[in-house]
Amino acid sequence: MTTTLITNIGELVTNDPEAAEDGRGLLGVVEQAALLLEGAHVAWVGRAADAPAADQLVDAGGRAVLPGFVDSHSHLVFAGDRAAEFAARMAGTPYAAGGIRTTVAATRAATDEQLTSHVARLVEEMRRQGTTTVEIKSGYGLSVHDEARSLAVARQFTDETTFLGAHVVPEGDPGEYVDLVTGPMLDAAKEHARWIDVFCERGAFDADQARTILRAGAAAGLRGRLHANQLTYGEGVRLAAELGLVAVDHCTYLSDEDVAALRDSGTIATLLPGVEFSTRQPYPDARRLLDAGVRVALASDCNPGSCFTSSIPLCIALAVREMGMTPAEAVHAATYRGAEALDRDDVGALLPGRRADLVVLDAPTHVHLAYRPGVPLVRQTWAAGRPL
Amino acid sequence: MTTTLITNIGELVTNDPEAAEDGRGLLGVVEQAALLLEGAHVAWVGRAADAPAADQLVDAGGRAVLPGFVDSHSHLVFAGDRAAEFAARMAGTPYAAGGIRTTVAATRAATDEQLTSHVARLVEEMRRQGTTTVEIKSGYGLSVHDEARSLAVARQFTDETTFLGAHVVPEGDPGEYVDLVTGPMLDAAKEHARWIDVFCERGAFDADQARTILRAGAAAGLRGRLHANQLTYGEGVRLAAELGLVAVDHCTYLSDEDVAALRDSGTIATLLPGVEFSTRQPYPDARRLLDAGVRVALASDCNPGSCFTSSIPLCIALAVREMGMTPAEAVHAATYRGAEALDRDDVGALLPGRRADLVVLDAPTHVHLAYRPGVPLVRQTWAAGRPL
Repeated sequence: MTTTLITNIGELVTNDPEAAEDGRGLLGVVEQAALLLEGAHVAWVGRAADAPAADQLVDAGGRAVLPGFVDSHSHLVFAGDRAAEFAARMAGTPYAAGGIRTTVAATRAATDEQLTSHVARLVEEMRRQGTTTVEIKSGYGLSVHDEARSLAVARQFTDETTFLGAHVVPEGDPGEYVDLVTGPMLDAAKEHARWIDVFCERGAFDADQARTILRAGAAAGLRGRLHANQLTYGEGVRLAAELGLVAVDHCTYLSDEDVAALRDSGTIATLLPGVEFSTRQPYPDARRLLDAGVRVALASDCNPGSCFTSSIPLCIALAVREMGMTPAEAVHAATYRGAEALDRDDVGALLPGRRADLVVLDAPTHVHLAYRPGVPLVRQTWAAGRPL
Repeated sequence: MTTTLITNIGELVTNDPEAAEDGRGLLGVVEQAALLLEGAHVAWVGRAADAPAADQLVDAGGRAVLPGFVDSHSHLVFAGDRAAEFAARMAGTPYAAGGIRTTVAATRAATDEQLTSHVARLVEEMRRQGTTTVEIKSGYGLSVHDEARSLAVARQFTDETTFLGAHVVPEGDPGEYVDLVTGPMLDAAKEHARWIDVFCERGAFDADQARTILRAGAAAGLRGRLHANQLTYGEGVRLAAELGLVAVDHCTYLSDEDVAALRDSGTIATLLPGVEFSTRQPYPDARRLLDAGVRVALASDCNPGSCFTSSIPLCIALAVREMGMTPAEAVHAATYRGAEALDRDDVGALLPGRRADLVVLDAPTHVHLAYRPGVPLVRQTWAAGRPL
């Protein structure tokens, strides 16, 4: 197998968990580092001066190298655009359009080819910004046919597909819709999905409905995730902890009991600050969670309604500006914790045996992702050992 | 002269002031538009269906085309990096380093070649983000030799160079330093500068010192600008209005009298939201200024201490999220008003006779600059009729 040595790395973020434990820092940084890739994987990590020989050499020019970002929450399968709704929201003026339902109508009307090319464009946009693993949800089909095809489209781009038939009730009786989601829709969706998710919020699905849906999903072999406590306090986060879900997403409105439940269950709180930026809502308090011993991940929530950013670098900058995270914590949350939130141990770190998914920054350290907000600092993204 | 027709423009932002006056909107938008370039200038603007013939055709693919951004406030001539100071500030921990003085020491120690290559890199980074005109200040030399050479370096990249010897008092007696700035330093700087600027703020220079420095600059043929009311209320904004300056920058803390003075004098308030993002200070209230009839420009203030972003798209998104501007007002402020803030009538709009400086967005409308924060949406930047 061909070996490639990336050398002259000014700062290498490994996310080595042993480094975090023995006080060498959360990111397991190695300075003046090199990274040996063998095929698609990392074979060796260390100081450049100690590096083994390799078939080819790449000079990183003193730049920082990080694990590729793991974006564990996105809604990329949709058609249409809600820029006018966004502009109205920012101006504080009423806007009559139907929110998610606008996107559902446009998505149903789109061809498979249109949906595929739209997802391809967004995934490519994400890669240029350093994202090498992305979770993609359905949820703008909301019919048996349209949910299944949304997932089939998503599956072309990632293994991390999530069935979100329970996004909103599209029309009719909520109880009948839950029956549809847990019955024929789940049957059609399950072959294309790894995960099942529910929007557990006032106006969407309550905790009892969410429990029913997640149990049906589990019986069909899908692992559970939840949208919860985004818009107000509620039972969603405690349900996630009760069910032992790997992650619960949003977590903007948390009681002390919610925080304790997350700490005790080990469920990861995935925070999505692009949403608060784009809706002018208060940001979740990452500092409170971290100080309580809760694991925190960051993801984009890229979607056409509440947050149409695909930029993990922006999420990192917002997490530092608005949520009390240090740059190191924010980078860790968007890489190592993102991988954990998808229960993946092959990505999210640059250590021997992990996949060689990495980002070369046009900057000497990871701090620049927060210090230089908005600047496209991702010089190059590598996935599975190859530059994109 | 070769003519180029850029056609199939989904939304063309012209910034035609007549459109703003007759109710067609602030941005003078033309949909399904085309733009004829003749050499370095715009020769014709209109509906694609009415476009004249041209030597060559460029298909914009339905994308939005905007005037290039005019960044009227930056501090690009420096050496060193203050990422550690930024991280400490975000963590709320004390940091012993010397702020601006750290950068002054690094700048004085750098060679001309190092300073030039550093500015070149940042200007190139700005261009990739759509900035086609940039003002660059000195202010990290603070000696006769280092201020003059900082401006000579800046002059290689822009005509809009600003002598900011009065950034802080580097050492010694403030009165003696004002004598130096208005005497030998101004003599050495004036041949390389168009503008003179003063940081009028508690801890820097008071209004009397600022008046003295700006008058000396005027006598030497330099036009005045001011940094004022960034950190607290003060006399700087009223001084700018009294002196009839074209623009006064920051304007975070404004009394009603300050707002009235800006309205009556016509002095432009240039807001720099990247600073508030990066220092966690309250944002200036653009809405209040606009509602009072004050002209508002947006600029980056790119500098290594308080704001190391070069991203006008981020400034636009922040202006919408945090300062009450509409996307159209924010785009106008970063183009047309930016040009006005530099007293330039050859850039900032896409109208016959203006310079063909433009941005092609990977988006159908200008709204996406706020709707899709952090995403590198600038597909291509053209300067003086040529793609970069």
